[in-house]
Amino acid sequence: MDTRARPDISGRIGALRRKLAETGLDGYVVPRFDEHQGEYCAPHDNRLAFVTGFTGSAGVAIVMRDRAAIFVDGRYQVQVRDEVDLDTFAIEHFYDAPLKEWLRNNLRKGERVGFNPMLLPSTWDVDCGRSVKAAGGFWTPVDEDLVDAIWADQPEKPLGKIMALPVAYSGESVAEKKRRIAAMLAEQGADLLIEAQPDNIAWFLNVRGRDVAFSPMPQSFLIFDRAGQTEWLVDHRKLPNDLSDFELDDVAIAEPGKLLERVKAMAAGRTALIDPGFAPSAAAHATRTAGGTVQLVRSPITLAKMHKNATELAGFRDCHRLDGAAWIRFFAWLEQNAADRDASGRPVSELEAEERILGYRQMEESFVEPSFRSISAADGHAAMCHYAATHETSAPIKRGGVYLLDSGGQYLTGTTDATRTTAIGPVSDEIRRAYTAVLKGLISMVTLKFPKGTYGHQLDAFARRPLWDLGLDYDHGTGHGVGHFLSVHEQPQRFDRRVNEIELKPGMVTTIEPGYYKAGAYGIRIENQVEVVDDGDGFLSFRSLTLVPIDLRLADMDLLTAAERTWIDAYHGRVVQELDGLLDQETVGWLAERTAPVGA
Amino acid sequence: MDTRARPDISGRIGALRRKLAETGLDGYVVPRFDEHQGEYCAPHDNRLAFVTGFTGSAGVAIVMRDRAAIFVDGRYQVQVRDEVDLDTFAIEHFYDAPLKEWLRNNLRKGERVGFNPMLLPSTWDVDCGRSVKAAGGFWTPVDEDLVDAIWADQPEKPLGKIMALPVAYSGESVAEKKRRIAAMLAEQGADLLIEAQPDNIAWFLNVRGRDVAFSPMPQSFLIFDRAGQTEWLVDHRKLPNDLSDFELDDVAIAEPGKLLERVKAMAAGRTALIDPGFAPSAAAHATRTAGGTVQLVRSPITLAKMHKNATELAGFRDCHRLDGAAWIRFFAWLEQNAADRDASGRPVSELEAEERILGYRQMEESFVEPSFRSISAADGHAAMCHYAATHETSAPIKRGGVYLLDSGGQYLTGTTDATRTTAIGPVSDEIRRAYTAVLKGLISMVTLKFPKGTYGHQLDAFARRPLWDLGLDYDHGTGHGVGHFLSVHEQPQRFDRRVNEIELKPGMVTTIEPGYYKAGAYGIRIENQVEVVDDGDGFLSFRSLTLVPIDLRLADMDLLTAAERTWIDAYHGRVVQELDGLLDQETVGWLAERTAPVGA
Repeated sequence: MDTRARPDISGRIGALRRKLAETGLDGYVVPRFDEHQGEYCAPHDNRLAFVTGFTGSAGVAIVMRDRAAIFVDGRYQVQVRDEVDLDTFAIEHFYDAPLKEWLRNNLRKGERVGFNPMLLPSTWDVDCGRSVKAAGGFWTPVDEDLVDAIWADQPEKPLGKIMALPVAYSGESVAEKKRRIAAMLAEQGADLLIEAQPDNIAWFLNVRGRDVAFSPMPQSFLIFDRAGQTEWLVDHRKLPNDLSDFELDDVAIAEPGKLLERVKAMAAGRTALIDPGFAPSAAAHATRTAGGTVQLVRSPITLAKMHKNATELAGFRDCHRLDGAAWIRFFAWLEQNAADRDASGRPVSELEAEERILGYRQMEESFVEPSFRSISAADGHAAMCHYAATHETSAPIKRGGVYLLDSGGQYLTGTTDATRTTAIGPVSDEIRRAYTAVLKGLISMVTLKFPKGTYGHQLDAFARRPLWDLGLDYDHGTGHGVGHFLSVHEQPQRFDRRVNEIELKPGMVTTIEPGYYKAGAYGIRIENQVEVVDDGDGFLSFRSLTLVPIDLRLADMDLLTAAERTWIDAYHGRVVQELDGLLDQETVGWLAERTAPVGA
Repeated sequence: MDTRARPDISGRIGALRRKLAETGLDGYVVPRFDEHQGEYCAPHDNRLAFVTGFTGSAGVAIVMRDRAAIFVDGRYQVQVRDEVDLDTFAIEHFYDAPLKEWLRNNLRKGERVGFNPMLLPSTWDVDCGRSVKAAGGFWTPVDEDLVDAIWADQPEKPLGKIMALPVAYSGESVAEKKRRIAAMLAEQGADLLIEAQPDNIAWFLNVRGRDVAFSPMPQSFLIFDRAGQTEWLVDHRKLPNDLSDFELDDVAIAEPGKLLERVKAMAAGRTALIDPGFAPSAAAHATRTAGGTVQLVRSPITLAKMHKNATELAGFRDCHRLDGAAWIRFFAWLEQNAADRDASGRPVSELEAEERILGYRQMEESFVEPSFRSISAADGHAAMCHYAATHETSAPIKRGGVYLLDSGGQYLTGTTDATRTTAIGPVSDEIRRAYTAVLKGLISMVTLKFPKGTYGHQLDAFARRPLWDLGLDYDHGTGHGVGHFLSVHEQPQRFDRRVNEIELKPGMVTTIEPGYYKAGAYGIRIENQVEVVDDGDGFLSFRSLTLVPIDLRLADMDLLTAAERTWIDAYHGRVVQELDGLLDQETVGWLAERTAPVGA
C-alpha cells in the first residue's frame, strides 16, 4: 500500500488554469529545468513536482486550459503512472514523442502557449516555437513564472555558502582562465560570454558552493566581457564578507535577478556567445532586444574545463586513493557481516550499505559529500539503472544474491564515481557468464591504445563486444565525463553509441562502465574512472583512476585470455601499492586475498 | 626522363581566357565531374585534363583572367606538380583548402565566376555560390560549357551498347521497383525524382551498359513521376531496335539533351526530389524556374539499392566462387614461376601479373570486365594505395619482396573486389609483425556480432586495434559498399572513422580491408568482401563472400589466438569446399597446401 500523502494536484491545476485565463494564455510549459539546466535541482525549482506530483529527475509538462500532458523518459514510465493523476495528464515519452511534436500535432489554431524563458534553453525555445507556429498558435514568453505565482509555500532559493578553491587545488588562476577564455571568444568573433552553468562558473572563478545536493557549486550567472568587466550575478548572502581568499578583484558582483538588465546594458552593438543547450533563452532575447548579436554555440568554458590540468589530475589521483580505501573498508565489512547477518535474520540492507560507505568516506578530511545518490542495489533492484533505495524499498543483501554498488564522492581534490558488483556466496552460471563478459568489456576498453583524433563513439563498442558475442547488450552509454570537484556527470566528453563531436585528448577524465541487466532478476556493472594519457607516439591510452579490487569470484576465469589475466594482476598490484599505508592490518589482509595474482 | 608529349596548355588557357572576355566573365570553374558525378569519367568529360594537363581521377580548377588554381587531394600532390604548369596554376588541397574557401578569400569584389550547372552538384553550387557572394562577386551559371567551346577535338560522348538485365539476375522487376520508389517518394512528400546516377538508373530499369571503363552502366538521366510517366533520357543509339528483352513498356525515352526542358515541363507546381551530391544543380534550378519545389535529399534509389535482395546475394556468392578460382589459379601460377624467373633474370612484372589474373577471369563466360584498375604492386609501389602500374613503372616481383594484388571483376551475377598480400620467399620480422596485425584486424572485424541499429563508424576501430596496439594505423577507410554488377565503390554504406549515417542491415555488401603501408618500402592489405547477415536474435554478423586463401607464411602464427586460428581454418575449409570442382588437379593440390589446417 502506498502510504505517501498525495499533494492537492487538482487544486494546483485549477489555480494554474485560472492564472492562464488572467494572463490571456491557453497553456503553459512546466519544465523540470531550473535557470541553470542542472541535473539536480533545488526544492525551490521543482515546479514539475509541484504541478504534477511527478518526482523524477527529468521531465516536462504542458498544462492547457482543457487538457494536459507530461513527458518523461524510459526510466520513469512506471513511476509517472504511480505519481500522476491520469485523468488530468496524458503520459508522453520525453524523447520518442517530445513536447515539440505534441505542440505541432495537438495545438489548435490561435492558441497561445506561455513559457518562462529563464527556464528554457534556446534549443527548446526555438524548437517548440517553430512547432507552435506551424500549428498556427502563439509562443509567448512570460516575465513572471506562472507556477511561482500560485506556489504559496514555494521553498526559498538555496543560499549555500561559497568557498574559494585555492590555485593549489584548481591549478590555474582566474586571471589565466580569463585570458584563455577571452582568446577563445576572440577566435569565435564574440565579445561577451553569457554563462549560466554552475560548474562552468565555479571552474572559471575558482569557487565552490553547496546550493544543490551532490553539486559543489553555487547557482549564479556570469557575464564575461573579453575586453572589460566580468560580472558575477550571485546572491551576496552566499559569500563571506571577507573575500580576501577569493580571486575576485576584477569581478563586479550583482544580484542574479539583474541578469537580463545587465545583459541589455552590456550587449548593445556587440556579439554575445550563449550556449544554446545550457543558458536561459531569455538571455538571447535580451541580447537581441538590446541590439546585440547572438552566437548560439557551446560555451568555451565547457571546452576548456574538460581538459584537466596537471594539478587537477594529481588531485584526482589523490582522492581516488582515499576513495579506494573507503570502498575496500566497505567490502571487507560487508563480507565479514553479510552472510552471518543473513543467516541470523538481520541481513544488511541496501540503505545500511549506502550509509556505511558514506561513513568510511566521511573519515577523510577532504571528503565533502557524495557525488551522486548511490545506487545500492540487491538482485532485481540492480537491473534498474537509476535505482535509489528508500525506506520502503530497501532490500536485504542475501546469500545467493548479487549486490551492485555504484557510488562516489566529492573531495576537495576531485570527484569519484565507481561501480562494483559482488555476491554473497556462489552465483549461477548465467550470472557468471554475463559478469565475465562485462569484465572483459571493461578490460578491452581500459587497455585501448588509440590514435589522436579519435572520438568516443569509435571506441564504445569495445566495451560491448564480449556481451554482443553472447547476444547481449546494455542500454546506456559506456562512459561519461567527470568534473574536478564539480559535476559527476560532466559534458561533453563521453563514450556512447551516439555520435559525440568531442575529440579525445590527454587530461580528459571519464568513466568506463559496461553492464548487463536482467529485469526483475539481477544487474551487473563494473565501472572504473579513467584519465586519458598521451603515449608520446601519436597515440593515447587510458589510465585507471579508480583503485578498487574487482571481484573475481563471480568471473569464469577460464574464459579470460592471458592478456586479460595479466591486466587484472597488474591492476590489482597497483591497488595494493597505491593504498599502502591507508588501511589497517586486517583490511590489508582482506585486500591481499582479493587481489592474489591469478597468473597469465 | 619523362618522354610524354605535353599538350599545349598555355594555348588552351589563352583560348579559355578569350572566351571569358567574350562572355563577360572573370573566371570559370573546371571540375573533373561529369554530368553523373561518377568515379570514372569518359574521355569526352575529362575537361580538367584538357585545361590543366592533370590526369588524376579527382580535382577541380578555377581559371580567372589573371590567375588560376587547381585543387587535388593528398594522393595527387606529387603528380600534379609533375603534370601542371606551376607558373600558371597555384596548387591547392582539394579538402584542406577547397575551392569554396579559395573563392571566399581570393575573389575580388565584383568579379563574375562562371560555372556549368550540368557539371556541379547542388552542394557545390550552394557552397561556392555562398563564398562568391561573401566575397562580393557574382556566381553565374552558363548554358554552354566554355571548355567544350574551345575543345576542337573533344572526344564524342560514349555510345556503349545497353543490355537488359533479366529479373533472373536482378531479382526484382522494374514494376516492383517503381512501386517501392514511389512509396518512398510519397513518404518524403515528393512527386518527382530527378536522377542522374548511372548505377541508380541501371538498377531501377534493370539495364546495364558500357560507357565508362569498370562501370557496367549507361550514362543517362531519369525523371520518375510517382503518379505517372517515367522518362528515361538516354541516347537512343545505345539501345537496340528490339526492346522486347527490356522492361521499358511504361518508360518514355528521350534524348539526354532534353533533360532541363523535360524537368521544366514536368515540375511546375510539384515537388522534385534531387540528390544534392549526385545530380546536376541545373536540375534544381530548372525545377524552381518552372515553379516547382526542390527537396535536396539523398536519392531513394540509393537507399533501396544498398539492400541486396536474395537473387542478388545468390549472384554475389556465385561470382565469388568463379572469382576465387581465378585468384587461386593466379597465385598457383605466380608461385610456380616468380622465384625461378627472378633467378633467371626475367622476373614476373606487375603488369604481367595484372594481365594474368584478368586472363583467368576471362575464362568465365559470365565475366564482363575488371571492376576497377587492379593495384598490382611490388614492394614500395604497394605503399601507394592507388597505384596503377604503367609500362614505365611496372616493377619486377622479386624474391625477398612483398607483392600486393587488389583486384576484382564485373560479372553478370555481381561485382567482386579482394586484396591479398604475398611474398616470394621469407620476409623481415617487421613485415611479419605488421602483416599479422593486419590479419588480426581483418579477423576481428569479420567475426563481429553486433546489434541491429549499429553504424559503420562504431565498428571501424575493430579492424585497426591490432595495428594501434603497435602504434600503427592506416589512412583510409576500413570498407566500402559494393554494387551488384554495378559500381565497385557504392555509396553510402561504409566502414570509416568518419561518421556514416547509414544503419547496417542484412543484405548489405561491403568490403573489409585493413592495411599497413610504409612509404618507399612495402604495403600490406588483406581484403574480404562480406555480406551482412541476420542472426535472428536481434543481432547481425558478416559472412565472407571472397573465397581466396590468406597467405599464412607472412604471419607470425604464435601471435594469433586460438579463436583466430579457428576462424582461419574454418574460412579456408569453406574456400576448399565452395571451389570444389572449379579447379584442375594441380591447382587443387596447391590450394590444399595453402589451406592446411593450423589448429587452435
